[in-house]
Amino acid sequence: MYQVDLNSDLGESFGNYTIGLDEQVIAHISSANVACGYHAGDPLVMDKTIRTAREAGVAVGAHPGFPDLMGFGRRNLACSPKEAKAYVKYQLGALMAFAKANGVRLQHCKPHGALYNMAAKDMDLALAMAEAVAEVDEDVIFLGLANSRMIDAAKQTGLRVASEVFADRAYQADGTLVPRKLPGAVIHDTDEAIARTIRMVKEGKVTAITGEEVPLRADSICVHGDNPSAVEFVKNIRARLIAEGVTIAPIAKIV
Amino acid sequence: MYQVDLNSDLGESFGNYTIGLDEQVIAHISSANVACGYHAGDPLVMDKTIRTAREAGVAVGAHPGFPDLMGFGRRNLACSPKEAKAYVKYQLGALMAFAKANGVRLQHCKPHGALYNMAAKDMDLALAMAEAVAEVDEDVIFLGLANSRMIDAAKQTGLRVASEVFADRAYQADGTLVPRKLPGAVIHDTDEAIARTIRMVKEGKVTAITGEEVPLRADSICVHGDNPSAVEFVKNIRARLIAEGVTIAPIAKIV
Amino acid sequence: MYQVDLNSDLGESFGNYTIGLDEQVIAHISSANVACGYHAGDPLVMDKTIRTAREAGVAVGAHPGFPDLMGFGRRNLACSPKEAKAYVKYQLGALMAFAKANGVRLQHCKPHGALYNMAAKDMDLALAMAEAVAEVDEDVIFLGLANSRMIDAAKQTGLRVASEVFADRAYQADGTLVPRKLPGAVIHDTDEAIARTIRMVKEGKVTAITGEEVPLRADSICVHGDNPSAVEFVKNIRARLIAEGVTIAPIAKIV
Amino acid sequence: MYQVDLNSDLGESFGNYTIGLDEQVIAHISSANVACGYHAGDPLVMDKTIRTAREAGVAVGAHPGFPDLMGFGRRNLACSPKEAKAYVKYQLGALMAFAKANGVRLQHCKPHGALYNMAAKDMDLALAMAEAVAEVDEDVIFLGLANSRMIDAAKQTGLRVASEVFADRAYQADGTLVPRKLPGAVIHDTDEAIARTIRMVKEGKVTAITGEEVPLRADSICVHGDNPSAVEFVKNIRARLIAEGVTIAPIAKIV
Repeated sequence: MYQVDLNSDLGESFGNYTIGLDEQVIAHISSANVACGYHAGDPLVMDKTIRTAREAGVAVGAHPGFPDLMGFGRRNLACSPKEAKAYVKYQLGALMAFAKANGVRLQHCKPHGALYNMAAKDMDLALAMAEAVAEVDEDVIFLGLANSRMIDAAKQTGLRVASEVFADRAYQADGTLVPRKLPGAVIHDTDEAIARTIRMVKEGKVTAITGEEVPLRADSICVHGDNPSAVEFVKNIRARLIAEGVTIAPIAKIV
Repeated sequence: MYQVDLNSDLGESFGNYTIGLDEQVIAHISSANVACGYHAGDPLVMDKTIRTAREAGVAVGAHPGFPDLMGFGRRNLACSPKEAKAYVKYQLGALMAFAKANGVRLQHCKPHGALYNMAAKDMDLALAMAEAVAEVDEDVIFLGLANSRMIDAAKQTGLRVASEVFADRAYQADGTLVPRKLPGAVIHDTDEAIARTIRMVKEGKVTAITGEEVPLRADSICVHGDNPSAVEFVKNIRARLIAEGVTIAPIAKIV
Repeated sequence: MYQVDLNSDLGESFGNYTIGLDEQVIAHISSANVACGYHAGDPLVMDKTIRTAREAGVAVGAHPGFPDLMGFGRRNLACSPKEAKAYVKYQLGALMAFAKANGVRLQHCKPHGALYNMAAKDMDLALAMAEAVAEVDEDVIFLGLANSRMIDAAKQTGLRVASEVFADRAYQADGTLVPRKLPGAVIHDTDEAIARTIRMVKEGKVTAITGEEVPLRADSICVHGDNPSAVEFVKNIRARLIAEGVTIAPIAKIV
Repeated sequence: MYQVDLNSDLGESFGNYTIGLDEQVIAHISSANVACGYHAGDPLVMDKTIRTAREAGVAVGAHPGFPDLMGFGRRNLACSPKEAKAYVKYQLGALMAFAKANGVRLQHCKPHGALYNMAAKDMDLALAMAEAVAEVDEDVIFLGLANSRMIDAAKQTGLRVASEVFADRAYQADGTLVPRKLPGAVIHDTDEAIARTIRMVKEGKVTAITGEEVPLRADSICVHGDNPSAVEFVKNIRARLIAEGVTIAPIAKIV
């Protein structure tokens, strides 16, 4: 039996600012990554997002980022592993308070944006973040980029770990993503993206941009709820996965 | 047997900014109120402060404040009870992560600055904050101003509650503090301050600025570690309390 | 000849967050109040907004607010006049840099949200803010609530001053706004709102919620670009004003 | 006649946090770099610092940094040249408001911390920052690391430019600083540091860590006021420079 999780970033609104079609995308995913107030999200939004996810039966995870609201956590910040560790603990704990108050347990932790990208390549940073999770709650699953240092680091700390893949991104021969600034990094054809994803889930393989067959574990697929077409894509990929005999399930049921 | 807690605000440093003689005052208190990153403190400071307290055998509590670093949380902010509730949950949870990682449980929660002053008088705000604590961890003690709405609110939510008194502040006939801007609000004579405090602890009474005898429960005395003379005062009051047969103990052993 | 300014808050987006239909509303107004990075706006948004206004031939002013991004500057903050003065200077100067770089001079300064509301009633605060403007650029017009302390304060500092009225708000007998939380505070009928506004502009009078005729100087009408119906209202009121022989002009041409 | 400027970072306090011995160091320097509220400083501090400098007869410049108060602007942030340009304009303008209100003109602009270090090596970033200054006030001098891209960029934009040298840092053969993490990067011997500096000022040369003689223009020497020994060093180097016939003068009199 094939299973995969569909995860999406939620709760990225802040104060008077609303972003993301959370209410729409929530119906089609199995795990929600909730922003924790550093790169996005605020206490009221965090509370509301956890309630929304609980009501939709969607598992909830922390989505910690850099303290860079102006850059939405997408800009690399040269912080030390010690700082990254403390930032993850802080944000994870903050979200846990809302989870606890809403009778929910956090399923996972997935770093956001630049923190994610940096940890994917930097073992010290990845270890610091995995240790942060392990020290705060060893039952929380670490959700990181497939084939990256995050996966290695989380395993090393003894955490359960889930590998994330991207439906619309091209892969390099070493199993990592083609950087966004390079040509061909993004797969714009929906059918191709979905077909690739189904193969990742069922065969554990993807064809690299340079033609090689690359082994890739796909526990969770990253999807978006930024705009109506993104939501449409989520509905689409979900339906196609199910039609292919793949069960959509939160990562806690998969790893 | 008489017992009282000595509590002090710790962990108010931020990034490159150091404030407070934490290392010095910690040796003389029984409970530390740790700033949680909104009005003061940052993740590294929170982590370090909890370790410092643990090593000193001092109980740790959350010290949530308004999101007003520029004003150090001392300026009234017209936030709604719903906002205050969410702010307390956020900060309490964030600190809990560091407590958990350091093998410590949070003993109490004491609102900071303007949040404290506003909740002392505003039942809706006080209730919101007490509920925040109760929903996140019902074992956490609510530490609030003696005779204030905070005490009523915390009791109403079923939390354990501790009453805080101020050694160097004058009281009004209704048991509340004389506002700082009024003459006589601060008692500058150390001996008088200590004598009044001992009476609060042993007799549960204080003489109001207008002469009345006011009943006052004194579970915890607020002391400061801002400067050498403040630390000197803490040593002094501690020694005098002990000499008077009063045991210094964290509030978890008192209420 | 009747003249009036139509002013709207612009440039309230922040980082990845977009708010307001700036591009749409700009075509119908004569003055733009540009957020300055405290309650809303960021450097890139400020720069872009000034260019947008310049290209549309719309006058530009500063719209300083409290350092409360989480509350969008709408929550009263108990800051001192000295703090308010420094906050206004800071934000005014920051916006002036972008104005200078774009070959534009700032026409006016209109405080935002809670800063506006507080200054309307508090002479010390209003004076502090007017002095801030006067000390930084004495040619900048102070745009404040008609009949409020802001008008008195700005006159007292020697600044040119413009009185702002609200099309959709009820007025009290003393010429101030009916607080939003009271019944009848907002006028929902568009035709009534426009008719009242035309009368304010042409006759300098408004009927208070309690029936009295209240004198009211209307140099500028506050309009909004938050949503399509708000933009529709701006088009509507503009067309009606012109049809009534009122010229729409920036406040620098009026006061 | 030999002349050199002594510049120091001032106004780095924030809210309740005090840092730096501004009042002490100000007496011994000729130019003050004033933090502008992003990495350090706040509106009240900026105002006070400009007054302090004016009273001491010390020239004032802007010291813009990254929006990273938690990291004191010392951590590289992967921002775009467009963002850096906007950040510099924003902070420069904000400080200009206080300068204007205090009857002072800004003499220079020196980027802070990571912004300085990044611009020293990255021509696009350096150009963006120099253009920011040129577009806001073409009379402001750009103060940057000697032999760095900042100097080239500022010249290219037509700004007057001043070269900064470090008394206590070792130089590489290409005229750039030995990175702090490398051995020998910091010169701990005060006499050696001062002797090297005098040679830089009088001969325009420094001996690289690898032995080569490196040409180096020294318009301004960076000194610090963080602690008593730093202030002592400033007094010392000032006295020695004067004893060697070097006049201490603000950069506006030198370049």
